[in-house]
Amino acid sequence: MERKKPTTIHDIAKALNLNSSTVSRALNNHPRISEKTRLMVQKTAKKLAYQPNSMAANLRKSSSKTIGVVIPRISRHFFSQAISGIEETAYAEGYSVVICQSMENEKREIRNIDTLISSRVDGILISPAIGTKSYKHLNQIKERDIPLFFFDRYIEEVDASKILTDDFKIARQLAQHLIDQGCKKMAVITGDRQASIYRDRINGIYETLKENGFNMESQLLIKETELIYENGEQAIREWLKQGVEFDAVLGLSDMVAISALKVLQEEGIKVPEDVMVAGFSNEPASALISPAITTVGQPAYEIGQLAVKKLLHFLKEENPMDAHEIAILKSELIIRESTIRTK
Amino acid sequence: MERKKPTTIHDIAKALNLNSSTVSRALNNHPRISEKTRLMVQKTAKKLAYQPNSMAANLRKSSSKTIGVVIPRISRHFFSQAISGIEETAYAEGYSVVICQSMENEKREIRNIDTLISSRVDGILISPAIGTKSYKHLNQIKERDIPLFFFDRYIEEVDASKILTDDFKIARQLAQHLIDQGCKKMAVITGDRQASIYRDRINGIYETLKENGFNMESQLLIKETELIYENGEQAIREWLKQGVEFDAVLGLSDMVAISALKVLQEEGIKVPEDVMVAGFSNEPASALISPAITTVGQPAYEIGQLAVKKLLHFLKEENPMDAHEIAILKSELIIRESTIRTK
Repeated sequence: MERKKPTTIHDIAKALNLNSSTVSRALNNHPRISEKTRLMVQKTAKKLAYQPNSMAANLRKSSSKTIGVVIPRISRHFFSQAISGIEETAYAEGYSVVICQSMENEKREIRNIDTLISSRVDGILISPAIGTKSYKHLNQIKERDIPLFFFDRYIEEVDASKILTDDFKIARQLAQHLIDQGCKKMAVITGDRQASIYRDRINGIYETLKENGFNMESQLLIKETELIYENGEQAIREWLKQGVEFDAVLGLSDMVAISALKVLQEEGIKVPEDVMVAGFSNEPASALISPAITTVGQPAYEIGQLAVKKLLHFLKEENPMDAHEIAILKSELIIRESTIRTK
Repeated sequence: MERKKPTTIHDIAKALNLNSSTVSRALNNHPRISEKTRLMVQKTAKKLAYQPNSMAANLRKSSSKTIGVVIPRISRHFFSQAISGIEETAYAEGYSVVICQSMENEKREIRNIDTLISSRVDGILISPAIGTKSYKHLNQIKERDIPLFFFDRYIEEVDASKILTDDFKIARQLAQHLIDQGCKKMAVITGDRQASIYRDRINGIYETLKENGFNMESQLLIKETELIYENGEQAIREWLKQGVEFDAVLGLSDMVAISALKVLQEEGIKVPEDVMVAGFSNEPASALISPAITTVGQPAYEIGQLAVKKLLHFLKEENPMDAHEIAILKSELIIRESTIRTK
């Protein structure tokens, strides 16, 4: 009973060991493609009975007018803001949005993708789980000619457009700010460095410390955690117990920064006088507690908007995805009482 | 090309001017149904060519193993916790979950429902938008024999099972606590009282004030808002400008309570000495600011769990929905520094 799947540009790409985007360009007579490649692609397309855009065009005709979104956690300020940007843009263009939450769990993310494909969404925007180590489920989206976009986080091994923030650059600025305020020994609480966002931030911090002549052995403490609230307290208590010194805590989420601040205050350590505290992502609570916490404001709403705009542009164009497009949006350093020592 | 829709118990109910649940019971030989009704229902079922559970059974055979959830806002602590309860229970039973956000907007809620029906979800759990004044989209779910459950909020005009919290009772406890701590004039910031949850809470507060001999004209201030952060500041500034007195602020969301607290402190009014402040829903920030705010902890996770359990029980039973089942879960009064005057 199974019908033969129509040939896609990915089948042609595979047969010729080319990029899908090269095949797409060749079929569309793109000027950057050589005559030789163009003829070779057209010949293979004919051999494989490729119908230009047939499947994609069909999909679009039977469009569900729905965008599927997969995020790690809806409860994080960054993601709820990104969803707002996605929804405002989508609804204005007549599209609905369904959201799935992976809870940073690869198995659940695979289920999410299956569910969205079965729901016949027109496209998928994903910020992959930290725990995701395989890519089959993501490549499966592309094989079905459903457009896929990464936002905020991405997986290098999967070809797809990405809408990201400038994690590397803003982490440099934040580290430099702490050094300018007198930091001589920095304690960093990070998430899993296999994830693109934490790797980029840590690289930014490393580079800045090195530029400022820090000894990476003796002037940097680093602890890898899940970045949930309790991890801030755990990290600080462990360092205090070990008797190691530090004069600034940089948490790569506001949740761990807030938790760290609370423990420092409980232990009679003054913030920012004895130890400065900075976070990441501008959770509402970071502005409400005392002292208010220095953090990074990310363009979450704008990332969501841009992801939908790019997806809708692609759906209207009726051209196969041109992979490797990367948009990087600017974050903002928000300096508050928790790191202001000099006036 | 349109096929005739199979007869449902709702068609029989309509033809006989009976409740669907009565028809369901009659068809299942329920002891509470009279012999006369049972025979009448069976006769009409035969006349309308009713196939017992045919459509529902078919739907279940082609089950998508997906539960659709519609909530007002994913960014609210209560709803993100409820979603956690929904997802943990659903995934453990092999079901996926897709989430739609109405943003308290009726039009968007109608779109959400359309999207979930098109995605062939096995059931829908909804906490309706405050702005929802029509019920056609909700009745449409039931007409398609897709099970529908309300959680936290409900619409009286739509027959469906409900999983709720004890808003009336816990609001009484909270009001009584403020009176016990010396409140003589209470300023309440509420949401739209057409919504079940705010109506129930306000009724609880009214009853408690009356029991305690409060003069409702002179000892109660009330302001209806959208319950977003800014509304707390706006309400307090307005009351201060009008020169009216109050010694306790009760916000029906933590966001307005936190915003009110901040303005009071800015104006040099001491909390809790001059004015006590209490909120609702136990947002994480309410415990982090100083003074920590007294609030109501709602069984959000448990509500989500129970909603899925009831839905899955219904799907397994293969019995038409027995309407009017109501489960009420217990909230918890969380007393913190912002309302403790007596030791």
